[in-house]
Amino acid sequence: MTDAGQYAYEGLDRVIHERARLAVLTSLIANPAGLAFNDLRRLCGLSDGNLSRHIQVLAEATLVEVTKTFEQNKPQTRCQITDTGRARYLEYLAVLEQVVRDAAAAVKADPSPLPAPVAGLAPS
Amino acid sequence: MTDAGQYAYEGLDRVIHERARLAVLTSLIANPAGLAFNDLRRLCGLSDGNLSRHIQVLAEATLVEVTKTFEQNKPQTRCQITDTGRARYLEYLAVLEQVVRDAAAAVKADPSPLPAPVAGLAPS
Repeated sequence: MTDAGQYAYEGLDRVIHERARLAVLTSLIANPAGLAFNDLRRLCGLSDGNLSRHIQVLAEATLVEVTKTFEQNKPQTRCQITDTGRARYLEYLAVLEQVVRDAAAAVKADPSPLPAPVAGLAPS
Repeated sequence: MTDAGQYAYEGLDRVIHERARLAVLTSLIANPAGLAFNDLRRLCGLSDGNLSRHIQVLAEATLVEVTKTFEQNKPQTRCQITDTGRARYLEYLAVLEQVVRDAAAAVKADPSPLPAPVAGLAPS
């Protein structure tokens, strides 16, 4: 009755799947020229420390690139998705689309949000 | 240029988003009458210990219900999604669909998988 691993979703890369990192990568996919740290932080609704920590994980996995520049004498950190990051994100996205398809099919097959009342428990 | 929290995806409920638990809940949504522990383990590609641990988290969050029965004198554990679990999963799914839409739109807006060569770096 059941297919082994049918719902295992091994392609849901843990580096990308974590919610904050998914937010960071989706922001950077939408802004391929890169984003300033502060813009990225705002788009993702993350604190400074949280964003720094997740960017470090993504940079170590070579999914994003961090550059430090000076603009009007102020240091600025910019992040950009790498080619590897884009390719890995596209692979991840294909699996995510499969999850959504599976889930939508399952929900459709059982459309009742609430169970039918149990006859034996009806007041007599 | 950027909308605060545009990619924050706060609706990606951490209890559900974790990969193994997403597998468990998708299996149970697809099998609303419930599944025996062993069938669930096989569908999700998880080890005994891993599945037990994640079911415990889901049961504590009242998203699944665990029942112990005897079938042919053998103890059997069955899991079933609860009404709360189904409702929370549907909310999660709506956010997941938004991630996929955002990502697909971003990828479509920038279809080139490789960056154009930088003119200034071409051999002279």
